[in-house]
Amino acid sequence: MKGSGARPIDDRAPLLPDRAALQGEPIPIVGGTGALGFGLALRLAHAGQTVVIGSRDGGRAEEAAGRIRDQLGSGARVSGAENCDAAARGPIVFLAVPFRAQSETLTNLKRALTEGQILVDATVPLAAAVSGKATRLLGVPQGSAAEQAQEMVPAGVKVVSALHTVSAATLGKLDAELDEDVLVTGDGKQDKRRVAELIGLIAGLRPVNAGALETARLVEGLTPLLISVNIRNKTHAGIKLTGLPDELW
Amino acid sequence: MKGSGARPIDDRAPLLPDRAALQGEPIPIVGGTGALGFGLALRLAHAGQTVVIGSRDGGRAEEAAGRIRDQLGSGARVSGAENCDAAARGPIVFLAVPFRAQSETLTNLKRALTEGQILVDATVPLAAAVSGKATRLLGVPQGSAAEQAQEMVPAGVKVVSALHTVSAATLGKLDAELDEDVLVTGDGKQDKRRVAELIGLIAGLRPVNAGALETARLVEGLTPLLISVNIRNKTHAGIKLTGLPDELW
Repeated sequence: MKGSGARPIDDRAPLLPDRAALQGEPIPIVGGTGALGFGLALRLAHAGQTVVIGSRDGGRAEEAAGRIRDQLGSGARVSGAENCDAAARGPIVFLAVPFRAQSETLTNLKRALTEGQILVDATVPLAAAVSGKATRLLGVPQGSAAEQAQEMVPAGVKVVSALHTVSAATLGKLDAELDEDVLVTGDGKQDKRRVAELIGLIAGLRPVNAGALETARLVEGLTPLLISVNIRNKTHAGIKLTGLPDELW
Repeated sequence: MKGSGARPIDDRAPLLPDRAALQGEPIPIVGGTGALGFGLALRLAHAGQTVVIGSRDGGRAEEAAGRIRDQLGSGARVSGAENCDAAARGPIVFLAVPFRAQSETLTNLKRALTEGQILVDATVPLAAAVSGKATRLLGVPQGSAAEQAQEMVPAGVKVVSALHTVSAATLGKLDAELDEDVLVTGDGKQDKRRVAELIGLIAGLRPVNAGALETARLVEGLTPLLISVNIRNKTHAGIKLTGLPDELW
């Protein structure tokens, strides 16, 4: 992210808002050194949350956490750890890995995740995982990457699917304004609501209940669709639903 | 549509804008007595276009055309005809039938469609076609309903796919304001542009180039996804992309 050409953050304003009231449990982000995971970590830390960046390599995770502290100031509550260590640290665990790494990562996480935790899966089965086009979606035997995740997590861990349509590039630049929706699917409304509360802490993101976990297969298809739109319109498009009521949850 | 509870149209204002300059070739709408086709016919006629509503039953088509003239005034250029008669009347033919009728309709249209015409397919393979849920998408052997259409039309007829995310209920009420995008896919950019020009005549609809025809399978998935969102949020949601440039075509 360093040297990405983003306009430098205005250092006259405090970067960490006084949101101690929002301060909750630590938020582990497995795959937090990748573009999406890093952007999510940056935005959640900026919103005053405690974030634990996970990576296969604990050193790389700590290095990524350092880059966020460099941006936000030493008051930012971000640390790095090996994926399994990270995943054990909070009740709601984000999984932001490429599809080709999802299955292996979930196998490793079996010893870390425990009953009652929520796993927020952001994986998209792009054909790019098998050297195909990023505008194409692979067929997943379980129906979607999210349903594959639900099949692989330990008993009692609930999977919620979200964050497929937010541009990692946009998330990763604090000066880039967000104004879009995040479609959230899952089989437990309370679980979805808890995830929506966290996502809603990021300014400009509106979480929307999009249905049961099986609907994740349709939401995952939005990523290759947006990539196709982006190629033709030279942008990083996001999605917004029209006609929704003010009160969503 | 009669007695649908919509607020009566304000009869003090002229319903047909003076858009003679926009007046082009007739626009056939196969399946124009269904909710989506009827709404499309109403909006295009309201925009000053000449519309030919098609139906398996020419009498029902003429009856639907009469309902539009009742709403817009006798100056509205809307007529009705049997599907094949309608389809032969203009260069850009809209197909708005339920998926269960798509294949049979296209078989019948083989004798009507000719080289150089564009068929705008709006079909969505909802599982409802086989008495399943409207929140589920069927697998289509060709990849999508649009690709099935491309396989079935006579040689030289080009398929463009569009209009999957616009609520038929909203289209069918002239006093309901539209403010959403229409994702257009197809293999010829010029064909997509011609279709986009027609769709763009409807106030509040912004056509967006979403890629090749094979991308239609991802766009068709938006319909069951929106139905899932609608069920949970009691609305008729539409879709809008964020971050697009002003100049789209």
